[in-house]
Amino acid sequence: MWVLVFLAVNVFAQSAPLPSWNDTAAKKAIMAFVGRITKEGGPDFVPPAERIAVFDNDGTLWAEQPLYFQVLFAMDRVRALAPQHPEWRDKEPFASLIKGDMTTALAGGEHALLDIVAATHFGMTTEEFERVVKEWLATAKHPKTGRPYTEMIYQPMVELLAFLRANGFKTFIVSGGGVEFMRPWTERIYGIPPEQVVGSSGKLKFEMRGDKPVLVKLPEVDFVDDKEGKPAGIQKFIGRRPIAAFGNSDGDLQMLQWTAAGSGPRLMMLVHHDDAKREWAYDRQSKIGRLDRALDEANARGWAVVSMKGDWRRVFPFEGH
Amino acid sequence: MWVLVFLAVNVFAQSAPLPSWNDTAAKKAIMAFVGRITKEGGPDFVPPAERIAVFDNDGTLWAEQPLYFQVLFAMDRVRALAPQHPEWRDKEPFASLIKGDMTTALAGGEHALLDIVAATHFGMTTEEFERVVKEWLATAKHPKTGRPYTEMIYQPMVELLAFLRANGFKTFIVSGGGVEFMRPWTERIYGIPPEQVVGSSGKLKFEMRGDKPVLVKLPEVDFVDDKEGKPAGIQKFIGRRPIAAFGNSDGDLQMLQWTAAGSGPRLMMLVHHDDAKREWAYDRQSKIGRLDRALDEANARGWAVVSMKGDWRRVFPFEGH
Repeated sequence: MWVLVFLAVNVFAQSAPLPSWNDTAAKKAIMAFVGRITKEGGPDFVPPAERIAVFDNDGTLWAEQPLYFQVLFAMDRVRALAPQHPEWRDKEPFASLIKGDMTTALAGGEHALLDIVAATHFGMTTEEFERVVKEWLATAKHPKTGRPYTEMIYQPMVELLAFLRANGFKTFIVSGGGVEFMRPWTERIYGIPPEQVVGSSGKLKFEMRGDKPVLVKLPEVDFVDDKEGKPAGIQKFIGRRPIAAFGNSDGDLQMLQWTAAGSGPRLMMLVHHDDAKREWAYDRQSKIGRLDRALDEANARGWAVVSMKGDWRRVFPFEGH
Repeated sequence: MWVLVFLAVNVFAQSAPLPSWNDTAAKKAIMAFVGRITKEGGPDFVPPAERIAVFDNDGTLWAEQPLYFQVLFAMDRVRALAPQHPEWRDKEPFASLIKGDMTTALAGGEHALLDIVAATHFGMTTEEFERVVKEWLATAKHPKTGRPYTEMIYQPMVELLAFLRANGFKTFIVSGGGVEFMRPWTERIYGIPPEQVVGSSGKLKFEMRGDKPVLVKLPEVDFVDDKEGKPAGIQKFIGRRPIAAFGNSDGDLQMLQWTAAGSGPRLMMLVHHDDAKREWAYDRQSKIGRLDRALDEANARGWAVVSMKGDWRRVFPFEGH
């Protein structure tokens, strides 16, 4: 009788932390890893100061379809700024974008995208940009779900972040997205403070405007935090090798390799978008969030692959359950 | 009687945290500031997440005479590497350096210094460099005191770091020194973990060596965290404006201006090297750690200026007291 009660309590204690995860291999891998590295006196114990976990953002913590949300932000921003830029009416990609013709606007590929980002992300101070991001997030809606972008986050990953922190981890974002685009909201949405957000960035220029110092965002790339840039970003900004890394695309491969190459127990995990019904299904052929080489490497090395369809009880926080 | 006991306890509680500080204006400014911003319900209360304090390192947390310690490290390293570099015997600044003639070696000025740094800081992996720094620190001795460099730290500042952390602050280093040179020891010596160290850096290149990923230190400057670079470094690496900033030279001026320009209570403080007996005395004319414009600005704006001579009971931890 007491044994049964004890077992029941024990099972509850183990399953309580991640309620939106099914009791499948992915969750078991997380629980086993955290159990090992937090067991004081155990052979795999890791001191709290070294419990660094890194998370990609687009496609790992929040959605990235139909386009990276930062691109959608930039497009909305072009339309908002259009009245002040009459010259855009005859200039691609702006002309098509303003008319709402996204296909033509994006026909120019990466070059068109860079023009859009440059026109919307630079030439203002860091404080002005932060205000613009916050205003956009307060009103913009995702084109498919009609939800604010800050609700397009994965509930199981939010629970995972909290669970790791409850076990002494410091959780970091290491994302290809712009660092100034993420920091205004990551603390409120993920519990990740600005100083634990690593991302791509442009150069900054310090200026005195009268008596007031400002930092101006220059139209010059400073750091691209993607692919080979992710281990470099970890070294530059964190300076300590993570023991756990979470990604979803080939852009995260090197971050997972770098994490895996440390000594002692490690957790490398990929979120696989295989749930067309609740989210999107895409991998090897996708332009956004392509998961091809990293999936092969995960299979070859035994890294955990999370099936959104099979491993997650719930995807978004707004879903009924 | 009870009133007297209460007063005595109160005085003790106020003076206990910073035992190496005299009870002068500098210490009072620190205590008053921390009291104001931690008083829950008070008009100046700052939530713990926003209690960011930034510290310069050279001349603020540890000494910087007769030369920045990182330069002394680079010089020792040239001598250690000399047997593998026969070509250095005919090439300045290396030839003079190996012979022990520092005056001639440094006659080339900044250019000579850059050659020395380039020859000793690049072309190896981040892990190799970390090992070299740790080995140097374990054996090298300061030329004047004969002490390990990690003992050439200011005891009052170490106490201040601990006092701020005990009051909910996150303490960061924001230094012109190399970030990879500082991170191997700041946690042990100052209690500041690697992820809270901002510094100058070179570019890094991710490479697979067989199955092992490495980051190679390239001979290309990535970021100079000095003067106008300091507010940029704060924005890049921390992403939140500090409420307290501590420096000692003109290289810290912009960091203090940036900190001062936020709203709410702020603490800006300069360490003034005016103690030739226990440390060194230098300011407006010094090549190392020049304090000129920043001292004028401190006086004009009422920033705190710490006299090492008058405000510090003890300078180094190894001093008798």
